[in-house]
This record gives sequence, C-alpha cells and structure tokens, in this order.
Amino acid sequence: MEKTYGRVAPAALQDYVTDILGAVGMTDEGARVTATVLTLSDARGIESHGVARLPQYVRLIQSGTVAPAAAPVVERESATTALVNARNGMGQVAGDFAMRLAIAKALKADVGMVAVHYSNHYGIAGYYAMLALEHGLIGLSLTNSSPLVAPTRGRNAMVGTNPIAMAVPTGDDRPFVLDMATSTVPVGRIEVFKRTGRQLQPGWSIDELGRQTLDPARAHALLPLGGLEETGGHKGYGLGVLVDMLTGVLSGALYGPLISGLWNTSSESDLGHFFLAFNPAAFGPLEAFQARVRDLRRILEHGERMEGAEEILIAGEKERRAEQDANEHGVRLHRTAYEPLIELGHRFGLDDFPLLGLE
Amino acid sequence: MEKTYGRVAPAALQDYVTDILGAVGMTDEGARVTATVLTLSDARGIESHGVARLPQYVRLIQSGTVAPAAAPVVERESATTALVNARNGMGQVAGDFAMRLAIAKALKADVGMVAVHYSNHYGIAGYYAMLALEHGLIGLSLTNSSPLVAPTRGRNAMVGTNPIAMAVPTGDDRPFVLDMATSTVPVGRIEVFKRTGRQLQPGWSIDELGRQTLDPARAHALLPLGGLEETGGHKGYGLGVLVDMLTGVLSGALYGPLISGLWNTSSESDLGHFFLAFNPAAFGPLEAFQARVRDLRRILEHGERMEGAEEILIAGEKERRAEQDANEHGVRLHRTAYEPLIELGHRFGLDDFPLLGLE
Repeated sequence: MEKTYGRVAPAALQDYVTDILGAVGMTDEGARVTATVLTLSDARGIESHGVARLPQYVRLIQSGTVAPAAAPVVERESATTALVNARNGMGQVAGDFAMRLAIAKALKADVGMVAVHYSNHYGIAGYYAMLALEHGLIGLSLTNSSPLVAPTRGRNAMVGTNPIAMAVPTGDDRPFVLDMATSTVPVGRIEVFKRTGRQLQPGWSIDELGRQTLDPARAHALLPLGGLEETGGHKGYGLGVLVDMLTGVLSGALYGPLISGLWNTSSESDLGHFFLAFNPAAFGPLEAFQARVRDLRRILEHGERMEGAEEILIAGEKERRAEQDANEHGVRLHRTAYEPLIELGHRFGLDDFPLLGLE
Repeated sequence: MEKTYGRVAPAALQDYVTDILGAVGMTDEGARVTATVLTLSDARGIESHGVARLPQYVRLIQSGTVAPAAAPVVERESATTALVNARNGMGQVAGDFAMRLAIAKALKADVGMVAVHYSNHYGIAGYYAMLALEHGLIGLSLTNSSPLVAPTRGRNAMVGTNPIAMAVPTGDDRPFVLDMATSTVPVGRIEVFKRTGRQLQPGWSIDELGRQTLDPARAHALLPLGGLEETGGHKGYGLGVLVDMLTGVLSGALYGPLISGLWNTSSESDLGHFFLAFNPAAFGPLEAFQARVRDLRRILEHGERMEGAEEILIAGEKERRAEQDANEHGVRLHRTAYEPLIELGHRFGLDDFPLLGLE
C-alpha cells in the first residue's frame, strides 16, 4: 500500500519553511516567526492552517498581494492599549508582534489589549493566545477572515469562521487552550466530504436558498456554531459577529462580506486581529489560581463518561498530545502537504526535504 | 377565553419589586438595583430571569441563604483591575457595583477588569454589559452558575449554562448586544416541553447514559451549544469552561459541579462573575468606530434571506424591540409570573399590584 504520510522533525521543518519564506523576500525574523506558527499548527494536528498553506503564501507574496518584508508599526498607544498597522505584511508577523506588545503591557499594567489592521491570514489563533502562558498570563486571540458563514436566517456567507482562542496557564504542561472557529465545521471539512462522497451532518451548511443541506455538492454557505436557529445557531452567528466587531471593526480593517477571499491575488485582505493578555495574579496569588484551574480540569476529566467514550477531554488536550507525538516522532504531514513543499524547495535551490520516514 | 398575560408599566413594576425586596431586608439602593435588573429582563422578553424569580429570591433571603443587606467590598485593586467580594449578597448588587467599577477604570485607563466572588445569581448578563454603552465603552459580562450542562463525552451536568454578554455602542439606539447562554437551550425550555408533551430538538439534551434524547422525560443534562461532538458541541463545552475559568476560578469562588443549586436554601452559592469594560476610542475616533459598527449591522440586516424568513437580525435587536413595546404598552407578564407577586405583595402589606390590563 502506498504510504501517504511523511514524518519530519519539527526543527528541520521549521528551518525548511523559514528558508523558503526568506527566499521570497521575508526578513530572517519574519520568516522564522511565520515558520514557527505554521509548524506548530501541523504539530498540534491542525493541518488546515499548517505548512500545506505555504504554496498559497508564496503565491500571495510573489504576486505582490502581500508585502513580505513589511514591519508592523504602532499607530496609537496607551499604557494598556495599542493599535498596530500590519502594513499588509504576513499575519503571523503582525500577530506575534502585537501579542508580545499586549503581554508587555499586561506585565506592567495587568492588562494589555492590542488591535491590528491592514493584516493578512495569521494561521492558528491559538499560537498567539499561548504566548501568554510562559508569563503566567491569560491570553486571548481573535481574527476575522473571509466570509464563509451565513447569518441566521440568511442565505449567503457574510461572516468569517472568525476564531476565538484563549489560553489559561495551569502551572504544569497541560494548559487550558481553547481554539475554535465560530462555525460548526471548517470549510475544508465540506470539501473533504465532497471529494469522498459522504453526507454532511445537520448543522454544517445550507444550500443556495438557505435551507439546511446534507449534500456537499449543494453546500453554499457554512452554518454558525449551533446550526439552524432552533438548535442555537443564532448564538454562533452572534459570536462570529462579535469577533468581527473586535477585530475588523475596532481596528479599522475590513469586516463582514467586505473582505475578499484571503487566498486570491486580486486584492489585499486588510484583516483585523485582536489580542488581550491579562494577569490572573492581579486578582489573587498565581499559584492558588493555577491550582484551581488544575482542580477544575481534574474534575471534568474524571466525570462519568457517556456510553462508549474513552475519556473526557479539556480544551487543548488533544492538540497537546499531537504536539508531544510530533516532538517525539516528527510532525506527521500528508503527502499532499509535503510534496508541494519539496517542489517549492527545488524551485528555490534548497537542500533535500528532511523527511524522517514514511508511513 | 381566560386571559393569561397582564401588562404593567415598567416603572410601577420596578417600584413594586423594590418595595418587596426592601421589606425582606435589602437596602433602598440594593433593592432598586435588583428590581431594575429583574424588570429589564422581563421588558426585554427574557422571562426566565425576570420578576418570576422574585419568590425564589425572597425565599433565599428569608432562609438566611443570601445576605440581603451585604455591601460588596473591593479586596484587591490596581489601576486596571479589581477583585470584589460580594459577601454573599444579591448578585445584582455585586454585579452592578463591579461593572461600574470596571467602567470607572476604563474611563481612566482605557481598560477595566473586575472579578467578583462569594456572589449569587445576578439575573441577565446583558444588563451589566449594557451599562458600558452610555459611556461609549464596550462591555463584557460573564457569570458561572449551577451545573446543568454535560461536558462533551460526559453523562452528567458539570458546567453551568455560563452566559457570555457583550455590548457594543453604535452611537444610536440600536446597540449590538449579544447575551447568550453557552448551552443550546436553557433548562426551562426542557421543562416547558415536558409539561406540554412535545419532543425536544436534537442537540438539546442527553439521557442518563449520555445519549442524545428527544424525550423530555429522559432529559438528564443539557448539551453545550453545538450539541453532540460531531456538530461542534465540544466548542460550546469549551466556551462554558472558559467562562468558568474567568468567573469562578479566577475570582476564587466555586466552579463546575462544586456549585450547588442556585435556588435551594441548603447552602450558599459562592458564584463568580467577570466584568470587562474598554474604550474603543483608544484605538481610533469613537464616531468612526460607531459608524463602522452601524455599517456592519446594515450589511447583515440587508443580506439575502433564507426562504420564508422575514428578516435577518443582529444580536440584541429582538430584545430591544421587546423593551420598546414594554415601554409603550407595559411589561407583559404571564399569569404564573405576576400572581405570585400579588401574593407576595399582600404578605408584605403592599398596595395593589399595578396591572394596566389583561390580554
């Protein structure tokens, strides 16, 4: 049987991606940050936001749609807040810069809040939230994105899958990390079901007339988390709009259906992000807080399970295990993800792709 | 046909409720604030958190479970943060106090964040978030509550319906106000369906073995927003836990299944709340921000509708219309809500209940 997955050491993958991004004009530091976010995404099992996106990023850069060497600048600032202009650079560069700024403010003023405009796709929202953890801070990261989700009672996509990510430090190596899109499923899920001819689940998508459909060929827009109105879809729709209010609208970036597709080269994305870091130690001793977080985690994990379930997980645990496995055995990449990387590497004269093995 | 609804002028209803709360030992100001929150809830059509709860509040106070005259105190404070001890007083009193403190901090430092512990049921989360609006601030309000929701893959209720409320000023009288529980439906919905013998919708609840059930008699725990795992229920579960982390866990209150029922008199609730106010003008001119919020609202409202839908709404619009109707024609109360009020009034020697009319 044909082997469909390759394993690559995280550091080697990161170097390889850094080199490609450097070759298309990113600064050393910008390329390093972007490669870190992409590699972490694959390591954590979120393949949709990982290195498989690299050919698209390269296309956006080479077409002049994204400015690879742009350095984000602070346009407004107070002790607790800042507005950052990403200057149409890579979202990862602006996001990393802005979240670190929020953290620096939180370390001084207990709370730091940074909005970003004129940005691009920033990868997994969780990366930025998790930057807060090593400082003992709670981190929040939000971004808007191109319209894929229909408002409740609407028939067309008007809102992005606008993720919410929050990371809470636990004092051990198992932080609480929620990183969720505000749609029921990502659009890639529909595409996979279409390719494999499988029926969708209720609550995933609607057809051109706004009716729920289980036929992937008829899927016209995603449903928000909760699905149709009778199962709470208006809440997911509200959350998606809330994220847009705090990202696109607050920062002065684009919002809603004004955002064009993130991956096409016909126009700039002008996305907005929002980052918040704050200090749990402002409310009481950090150790006691972390002990309570671990206690709640323990209580949830030890709850009685539904029939057939092996375990109850807390947010971030599945991804943490994937990351641990990636660190031990290499990041697991599907052939359709690593073959284009090999091709890109050849184009830019890179050494061989550092495959550890196939499986 | 028997008339099942009564109309009461909002101000008269508020006075009546204030008098009852005063009669059981609340301070004038505390009774006034609590009555305001309860009346607003009914005015906005959220009957589950309105004056129908008054007999239960009175029972909690008269049994000594809740301390009616307790004044909240600030236990820790910085320019941007505070920890408030509600001293087992009414949640509305502590919530109003804490949100106004967050607002005062945000007006000085752009961001104010206040956590509350040792509190009780605070009514609708949206009330506190909306306090930020008249200051041109964005408001967030979270609370934990007694366990009703099962974790994804679990079979027992471990997490409250832990609501998220956020209010965004629009510069006109139609603010964006999201006020949502993180369960698919409130527990009261299951009770109504049980009484009326109707089948539940998928995604609402599970039975004792953790299997989804459509039979209200078998409903053992609520499902989180999103329902089962394949329709994204783990996201709603993650959001519910997130709210608990920022309320019960952060403040040092109880959390998860450690919370006993909010309405029983056997033990104190020790709930936690979390309030955030921040200044959009820190990121750019307020008028321009509000214009963009209105623009996104307009775009969403004018989107193409699904078959059979009359309109697309933004969060808070339905409640705003209900409030407008209540202001014009009186708050509409079901007989089962106002009759116990009349009885309570008689008990405390109040004047007649100020019914405007029946319908």
